[in-house]
Amino acid sequence: MLFHLLEDSEICSLIAVRRRRRCQNSATFFSHPMSSPKHVGSGKVAGMGKPQVAAVLPAGGSGERMGVSTPKQFCTILGRPLISYTIQAFERVRWIKEIVVVVPAEKIDLMQSIIHKYGHKRVTLAEGGTARHRSILSGLKMLAQSESPVSKLWKPDVVIIHDAVRPFVEEDILLKVTAAANEHGAAGVVRPLISTVIASSEVGCLDYSLERAKHRASEMPQAFQFDAIFQAYLQSSDYDLDYGTECLQLALKYSSMPAKLVDGPPDLWKVTYSRDLYAAESLIKDGLSQYVCLITVMKEDVVQVGFLLHETLKTHGKQVKGISPSMCENVSQLQSLFKDKPCYNFICINTKESSFEDAEKMVDLLGSSSLPILYPVLLFSVHLVGPEGSSLYDKPQELEGIRDLSHKAMKKNIWVYGLVINLTKIEQQLQETVCRGAAIIMALIKDRCGTLAGQLLVA
Amino acid sequence: MLFHLLEDSEICSLIAVRRRRRCQNSATFFSHPMSSPKHVGSGKVAGMGKPQVAAVLPAGGSGERMGVSTPKQFCTILGRPLISYTIQAFERVRWIKEIVVVVPAEKIDLMQSIIHKYGHKRVTLAEGGTARHRSILSGLKMLAQSESPVSKLWKPDVVIIHDAVRPFVEEDILLKVTAAANEHGAAGVVRPLISTVIASSEVGCLDYSLERAKHRASEMPQAFQFDAIFQAYLQSSDYDLDYGTECLQLALKYSSMPAKLVDGPPDLWKVTYSRDLYAAESLIKDGLSQYVCLITVMKEDVVQVGFLLHETLKTHGKQVKGISPSMCENVSQLQSLFKDKPCYNFICINTKESSFEDAEKMVDLLGSSSLPILYPVLLFSVHLVGPEGSSLYDKPQELEGIRDLSHKAMKKNIWVYGLVINLTKIEQQLQETVCRGAAIIMALIKDRCGTLAGQLLVA
Repeated sequence: MLFHLLEDSEICSLIAVRRRRRCQNSATFFSHPMSSPKHVGSGKVAGMGKPQVAAVLPAGGSGERMGVSTPKQFCTILGRPLISYTIQAFERVRWIKEIVVVVPAEKIDLMQSIIHKYGHKRVTLAEGGTARHRSILSGLKMLAQSESPVSKLWKPDVVIIHDAVRPFVEEDILLKVTAAANEHGAAGVVRPLISTVIASSEVGCLDYSLERAKHRASEMPQAFQFDAIFQAYLQSSDYDLDYGTECLQLALKYSSMPAKLVDGPPDLWKVTYSRDLYAAESLIKDGLSQYVCLITVMKEDVVQVGFLLHETLKTHGKQVKGISPSMCENVSQLQSLFKDKPCYNFICINTKESSFEDAEKMVDLLGSSSLPILYPVLLFSVHLVGPEGSSLYDKPQELEGIRDLSHKAMKKNIWVYGLVINLTKIEQQLQETVCRGAAIIMALIKDRCGTLAGQLLVA
Repeated sequence: MLFHLLEDSEICSLIAVRRRRRCQNSATFFSHPMSSPKHVGSGKVAGMGKPQVAAVLPAGGSGERMGVSTPKQFCTILGRPLISYTIQAFERVRWIKEIVVVVPAEKIDLMQSIIHKYGHKRVTLAEGGTARHRSILSGLKMLAQSESPVSKLWKPDVVIIHDAVRPFVEEDILLKVTAAANEHGAAGVVRPLISTVIASSEVGCLDYSLERAKHRASEMPQAFQFDAIFQAYLQSSDYDLDYGTECLQLALKYSSMPAKLVDGPPDLWKVTYSRDLYAAESLIKDGLSQYVCLITVMKEDVVQVGFLLHETLKTHGKQVKGISPSMCENVSQLQSLFKDKPCYNFICINTKESSFEDAEKMVDLLGSSSLPILYPVLLFSVHLVGPEGSSLYDKPQELEGIRDLSHKAMKKNIWVYGLVINLTKIEQQLQETVCRGAAIIMALIKDRCGTLAGQLLVA
């Protein structure tokens, strides 16, 4: 459910079938004339073949409910601010042409540095207002000014509005709300209620409870015909702009557009409390831990351990690809291993002779790519010792070697771990050792905390 | 916010002030005659000094929304089923005399084994119905049958109803709803709405949106005068029992009791989706990582490292107590270090001579106590090497020693880690080494995953 965060390619999906279906939808959406919108805000939309789509992400929240001083959109997961994950989710979608992020004046510099650091494209910053609706209005104004000669932007036909603190938004739901908005004027994602909603009497007692089945929680994303929603915002009263929170309500009230409601997945929830940040972190780490690339040479010991490791990781639900060092010539080759899913976990099984050579090459290769910009990349350098006589620490340079390599790699957001596997001729024992090794690798991949990088662990 | 899960003592609080306030509340509640209830279900409640309180925990959910086959109340966190955490939260509250857990027939054996394994007291099992309300009715019937000569139970004056999948319930909110129910007949916790609630028209478009400020999400716990809620359930229609979910609504409809609404903390949220389980896990681990006990002898090197470690951990927000090995004679002494908060993290700094002796003693002591029953206990065995000449692996037996000790301790739910600190005479260097050591300890405490137990890590 989180794979949209895990890849650089612009169209994503969890499984191939779903992917094909989505692409068909996408094709239909963009190549056929739209059905006539019921509510047309401007003549431009009607009969148009390909709507121009932009997004506005209001990011002015204060994080009060989080109980922390950092607004939640700037809280970090794996060192990267939450808002960067949300921007990334929109960037992947090729047909969203422009992303306007609205932040308070005092956060403009911070936001600019985030855009620069993580290489975000197609993002324009706008200065936010004091309330959510005022921030959205700022974003809409920036898009509307496109006709000014100084603007790099253009006025979209459809605008998507989404919260900066809902990073798990996938292309298919963006497509659904955009298509529905294009047809109906306005559309928004809804979810079933988790708790019963009740109304309180004046004395703080239960007045009535709502029937759960008839009501829905209104979530994001929402989408609107641009001219219609912009007019609605321009006409909104100060009270609505200062105290309202629901865009669909403004569209209904000021532009008479009853939004089409679209059922959305549970991952669209809003990161509101500290626990939500924990949940988001775990989901992101979970996603990053799915794919593993195993690099082995064709030598007997190495192949045997590689095979056992491969099988064990697969048994535990990982998708594993085994390759030879010669296939590690360029990153794009490595990236095509899992079609368009980038892999952030590498295991390099060293021969007794090569020691760190292959691992060092991998650090150079990965470090020169854009891969570690968005997420830390993990590299396990596996060292085989034995089978007889030679003890693990006959070569104390292993420990020093792994520390030095880790130190160098850390600067490039690559975390290197050493793993010692004791070769034994008793197959059962070797299997158990490799199982322990796989468990160590999986634990470190899942926890994805850099503190233990540079350690030499023993399976 | 999670400390109620972190201790065995029965009255808990986050900070001393809050604790005192609560205890005062508790005293008032139980020593003064109750104010006259507005809705009296039976003569027993009126004018009563100390209401008898029981709890019913319906635990029949199927976990459909979780997307997993295990119902969420039986999903494990740190190896222990979620429902055990919720029971633990109720057990700590001395004035709740009986806890009735309602599970489907096919889960009775599993539930019995959970109660046995984690040593839960005051718990009675009831067989649940096909729907939530029918399960609650089963629990109420069990309490109502107390007058039968075979029953060990008694009929309470007030019954608390709570979901098995809301483990973070503290004594103060239980007290508030119980007191409010005793006075008003019924009471329930409410929270502000996170999302706007909307109603859909017949064609799936926005009909209207509710004003967020006038509505609340109804959460748990809820409490009721026993006779009144039991009568309400007995009178409920089959439709209400099969399709209703809101106890407050039944109390209003069948016993004319408009529940008093009590504002609750955010931690009462219901574990519904996989992400909620992640969040709960992180909160529990967070809580377990707050307290650290540091065991040092009075020898120069040891004292110096111990002092630096103590200061570094404190700087990072841990509460640390340093003690001598002689204070580790019995567990109750160790437990009183942080008043009534049990400590689940121990660091033992070995002298060069003693090697593993102190760590081994600690494993025996902790293993013979009840401490590791509810949570894994972490023990760091710190080994000092150097300052000059002697290399880390002059003594390969260290590695074997830590693996053997870890293997033995693991069976008792104690996870042992070795940590090597290189003594150097350059103070700045030693400080940096200890800082790295503290970071390793904190990372392992926070992640609390047993896979790396038995490893010898190098600071």
